[in-house]
Amino acid sequence: MKKLINSPDTVIPDALRGVAAAHPGLAVDIENRIISRAERATSKVGLVSGGGSGHEPLHGGYVGHGMLDAAAPGEVYTSPVPDQIIAATQAADSGQGVLHIVKNYTGDVLNFRMAAELAEDEDIRVVSVVTNDDVAVEDSTFTAGRRGTGGTIVVEKVAGAAAEEGADLDTVAQLATEVNERSRSFGIALHAGTVPAAGKPGFDLAENEIELGVGIHGEPGRERGEIAPVRDLVAYALDAIHADRPISGDVLVIMNGHGGTPLIELYGAYAEADEWLNGHGITVARSLVGNYITSLDQAGFSITVTSLTDELARLWDAPVSTPALRWGM
Amino acid sequence: MKKLINSPDTVIPDALRGVAAAHPGLAVDIENRIISRAERATSKVGLVSGGGSGHEPLHGGYVGHGMLDAAAPGEVYTSPVPDQIIAATQAADSGQGVLHIVKNYTGDVLNFRMAAELAEDEDIRVVSVVTNDDVAVEDSTFTAGRRGTGGTIVVEKVAGAAAEEGADLDTVAQLATEVNERSRSFGIALHAGTVPAAGKPGFDLAENEIELGVGIHGEPGRERGEIAPVRDLVAYALDAIHADRPISGDVLVIMNGHGGTPLIELYGAYAEADEWLNGHGITVARSLVGNYITSLDQAGFSITVTSLTDELARLWDAPVSTPALRWGM
Repeated sequence: MKKLINSPDTVIPDALRGVAAAHPGLAVDIENRIISRAERATSKVGLVSGGGSGHEPLHGGYVGHGMLDAAAPGEVYTSPVPDQIIAATQAADSGQGVLHIVKNYTGDVLNFRMAAELAEDEDIRVVSVVTNDDVAVEDSTFTAGRRGTGGTIVVEKVAGAAAEEGADLDTVAQLATEVNERSRSFGIALHAGTVPAAGKPGFDLAENEIELGVGIHGEPGRERGEIAPVRDLVAYALDAIHADRPISGDVLVIMNGHGGTPLIELYGAYAEADEWLNGHGITVARSLVGNYITSLDQAGFSITVTSLTDELARLWDAPVSTPALRWGM
Repeated sequence: MKKLINSPDTVIPDALRGVAAAHPGLAVDIENRIISRAERATSKVGLVSGGGSGHEPLHGGYVGHGMLDAAAPGEVYTSPVPDQIIAATQAADSGQGVLHIVKNYTGDVLNFRMAAELAEDEDIRVVSVVTNDDVAVEDSTFTAGRRGTGGTIVVEKVAGAAAEEGADLDTVAQLATEVNERSRSFGIALHAGTVPAAGKPGFDLAENEIELGVGIHGEPGRERGEIAPVRDLVAYALDAIHADRPISGDVLVIMNGHGGTPLIELYGAYAEADEWLNGHGITVARSLVGNYITSLDQAGFSITVTSLTDELARLWDAPVSTPALRWGM
C-alpha cells in the first residue's frame, strides 16, 4: 500500500493539523478532534455533524458561516465517540439549542443519541435529525434502515442558512427533516478505496465489475454489474432514485466523486444526468459537480437529487463560507 | 480499464456538455471546444489559456470573473489546435488586447505561437507568457526547458485580477511574468493515471515505488524512490524548490492533488509543508488544499510555492467567481 501518510495511527491528527494551518477561519482542537468556527456565533441555533473520517470534505469542510458550527470527525470509517460529540455540541451552543445532523449508521446514531442525552443534562437543548437518503438498500453492513449519504450536504446547507437567519431550533430541525425527505441518492463504485490501517482495498471488483448501489464505506449495494457506458450507469442510478420517489419539478443535483474519480469523468456523468432529467421533464435548477462526500480514494460516483421548493432554493443560495462551499461572501 | 465514459472518443465533448449544463455563467462551444464567459467583458485585457485535457479544473474551471476570459481544451494530454486558440482569443478580445498564458510544453508553445500570429493578422494584439515553474527537470518528454505546472493557476488568478481592475496588456503581462518567476513547483506520484484512449496506467510503479519530480502527464522526474512517510516526501519536494529559488518572506502554497489522492491525505501533507516552512522562518500567508491541476486519476501531490509581495497578495485576494475558485462575490 502506498499512502501519503506518516503512519496509519496518525492520519486523523495529521489531517487536523493541516486543516488548522490551512483555514484560519476554523478552530481545530486536535487532541479532542473537534473542528469549529474560530469566531463562535453569539446567538443562533447551533449545527453539529460528524461521523467517520475518510469522507472529506464531509463534515469538517462544511464548518463555517451558513453551514455547521462544529464537526466531530471519528477515526476512518468509524463513528466519533460521545465525548467528542458533546464537546462539539458545547462549541456550537450559543443558548438557542443545537441541531445534530446524523447520517444513519448504527454507531453514529447510538453515539449521537448518548451525547444528546448528556448535553441535555448540561441544559443544552438538542434535536437530532437522522439522514437516510440512499435508496440502494434497506439495512446494510452498518445500518438498520437506509444509509445517509450525499443528501446530508443539502441538509447541512439549508438548515445552516435558516439558523443563520435566526430561525428557532424546531424550525431548523423541521427544514432539515424536509430536505432529507426530499433527497435521494445512489452510488456506483468502479474500484474500492483503501483504508490506511487495513492497507488494501476495502473490497475486490473484477476487471470489468462494478458495485451498483455501493455505500460510502464500500458496503455492498444491490448487485454487481459490468462496466457500461456512463450514460447507462447514470440512468441506472436515476431510475433507482425515480422509482423510489418520483422526481419532478425543480431539483438540485449533486454529481459527486468518491475521491478517486477524475473531474473530467464527473462532468461527463453530469451531462448524462442533466440529459436524463430534462428528458423526464425535470429542471435542474441547482447543481454541484465534484468531490463532496468521498470514500477515500474510491473510484466511482454518486448522484443526489433534492426536489426543491422556492424556500429551499432560496436557503441553498444564501451566503456560505466554508472550506468546501463558498458563495455570496 | 474501468472509466466513467461513454467511449474514449467522446470524453472531451461529453465533459464539455457537462460543463455547459452545470455552469450557466460559462458559454461552451462544444463543436469548437471553447469555454468562455457567458457574459463577455466589454473593455478589458482578455485572458486566454488552454492545453491538454485531463488536468481539470485547469483551465476551463478557471474561466469567469477575476480569472480567464476563455480556455481552449485539447484532447487528453494533447495541445489544443491553433484554430481553437484563435477562437478563444476572439471570444476573449474586447479591444484591449489578449494575454495568452501557456504552459511550457512544446506542442502548446508552438500552437499558441501560431494562433498569436494569426490573431495579430486580425488586429488583436496578443502577448504570451509561458509558465515554467516545475523545478524537477530541465527538458523532459514533452518540453524544452522546464515544465509549466501549478504556478499557472497563480498566474491566471493574479493576472486576471489586474485585468479586471483595468490594467493594460503590458502591465498584466508583466505581472504574469513576475508571478511565474516567483513560483516553483514539485510533484510526486504514487500511482499513474489512466488515459482513456490508452486504457492502462501511463507508467508502472512497483509496489513500494514512487516517482519523484513527476510531470503532469506522468513524465519522468528526477528519480524513482521508495514510499516514505509523507513528512519526508514533502521535505524532499520543498528542499528541491528551496534549492532552486530560496524561499523567504510571505508565501502562497498550493498543496495540490493529482486527481486520485484522498483529501484527508492532502491535508496531512499540507500540515507537513506548513511545519517545514515555519521551521525555515517562512510565513504561509495564503494557501489552497485540493485538486487544482490534476493528471486524471493519478495518485500523488504537487506543491507550488509563490513568494508574495503585498501587491500580489492583494490581487490574489481580489474577488473571483469561477467553477473552481470563488471568493469575495
